[in-house]
Amino acid sequence: MKYILNGKLTSKENATVSVRDLALMRGYGIFDYFRCIGLKPLFIEDHLDRFFNSAATLRIPMPFSKEEVHQQVLKLIEENQVMDSTFRLILTGGYTEESYEIGEPSLIIYNEPAIEWNMQAYEKGLKLLTLEYRRDIPEVKTINYLMGIYQKVRLAEAGAADVLFHMNGKLSELTRSNFYIVDQNNVIKTAKDDVLLGITRKHIKKMVEGKYQFEETDLYLDDLKSAKEVFISGSGKKIVPIRQVEEQVFNNGKVGEVTKDLIEMFEDYSEAFVRD
Amino acid sequence: MKYILNGKLTSKENATVSVRDLALMRGYGIFDYFRCIGLKPLFIEDHLDRFFNSAATLRIPMPFSKEEVHQQVLKLIEENQVMDSTFRLILTGGYTEESYEIGEPSLIIYNEPAIEWNMQAYEKGLKLLTLEYRRDIPEVKTINYLMGIYQKVRLAEAGAADVLFHMNGKLSELTRSNFYIVDQNNVIKTAKDDVLLGITRKHIKKMVEGKYQFEETDLYLDDLKSAKEVFISGSGKKIVPIRQVEEQVFNNGKVGEVTKDLIEMFEDYSEAFVRD
Repeated sequence: MKYILNGKLTSKENATVSVRDLALMRGYGIFDYFRCIGLKPLFIEDHLDRFFNSAATLRIPMPFSKEEVHQQVLKLIEENQVMDSTFRLILTGGYTEESYEIGEPSLIIYNEPAIEWNMQAYEKGLKLLTLEYRRDIPEVKTINYLMGIYQKVRLAEAGAADVLFHMNGKLSELTRSNFYIVDQNNVIKTAKDDVLLGITRKHIKKMVEGKYQFEETDLYLDDLKSAKEVFISGSGKKIVPIRQVEEQVFNNGKVGEVTKDLIEMFEDYSEAFVRD
Repeated sequence: MKYILNGKLTSKENATVSVRDLALMRGYGIFDYFRCIGLKPLFIEDHLDRFFNSAATLRIPMPFSKEEVHQQVLKLIEENQVMDSTFRLILTGGYTEESYEIGEPSLIIYNEPAIEWNMQAYEKGLKLLTLEYRRDIPEVKTINYLMGIYQKVRLAEAGAADVLFHMNGKLSELTRSNFYIVDQNNVIKTAKDDVLLGITRKHIKKMVEGKYQFEETDLYLDDLKSAKEVFISGSGKKIVPIRQVEEQVFNNGKVGEVTKDLIEMFEDYSEAFVRD
């Protein structure tokens, strides 16, 4: 599998970054992540838009145009020839002789075979724990996932898959997913503040138009008590049902009808998208 | 200037880390930072203790013993022969074929000439802004300084040097410094929760024994109103007076007597420490 480092094809072994890069010294960098269906990247324009917005917000000078990065992605698809892969784009804070100044960034692109998601997750739903936490600059896809990885021992002990973030009881997102509640009237609700502007979230909203009501709104821990169904979304995992949050179980522990419907709709929607 | 990567002397150019390291992919890693007076590392046992504690808390397997890392530091001092340098130790979350699992870490050690701190800072004091924020896992020196670097534009616009963190008005620390208030009775107070356990902080406490009362306690934004003097500390900057926080000016904008005394005491204390 080839990687692309600063516009050039390279081996995995040579895909390295200086220890003087701000990504390593200060955790300062951004990334983005998307899926390919077969050899076709899904929602790539959205991901590139977000990636470039993330860079601009963190003031990291992007070394290539959007079109050039798009071409690099297509070049790597052609080179690696992996059906159904996932792509990672990383832009580092950059090489610096100082230790707190943005420097000359490195852009890394690679893909790998898509992980087979545990089918049980889709059939039985996942368990979540809660955590009072807000991601740094939530609307930006930074490389900082320190807290998520730190929580893994606690999650494993509880048989839980991830943490649901809140601040003073106001819900936002998971470490790597957006979060949704389906209420008793089948209205789909997702947090409007302090969340990553998920590409899957954006397309779910578009996809359900005319079929379900979709609200970006304030959600609280208390809203879980009356939730009919709960699910999460992400570019890799797509739509995954949530069975319980802490001790609160939804829909008697069964995947709800709306969630099931959305999972199916999203498969069709995504496949139609890459066919067009 | 040589670097040490995984126990071996190497050139700066060859001091690189794989883009598959969790430090780059997920901002997962730790570091530590200390000063040398001449060719003698200051408080190195404390820094190594903290560095090893940080690794243990984040469950990153340390590839060397404390004594081996100590020897590597001494080797680099011998090799680079820089008087008055500062050292950085970085331990990465490690190389991983997965994207969310701790892998085989890299340990990077390097030193560089100590930055000449702006003397004005010591004579006139710095201005701070405030920010509602808590560092991830505050007691650990992780590599995540994303928020601090992100705030730099806002700081520059306000002519301020750093942000003072608080949560709901409860003060903690700065991005890279501990924070102290000297009250009207010359009691030195520093936040007890949600702070990095600073090595300079530890030694200030020890140094002032018998001369000043030192309290690790809860401090609030409101306490700034009655503060006589304010200062910060860090391994590189030592003790630096704070002239104002937002619009609140301390001691009529002059460096206070206690702060001046501590700055002098700390010079003597540090020099005596490396002489022993």
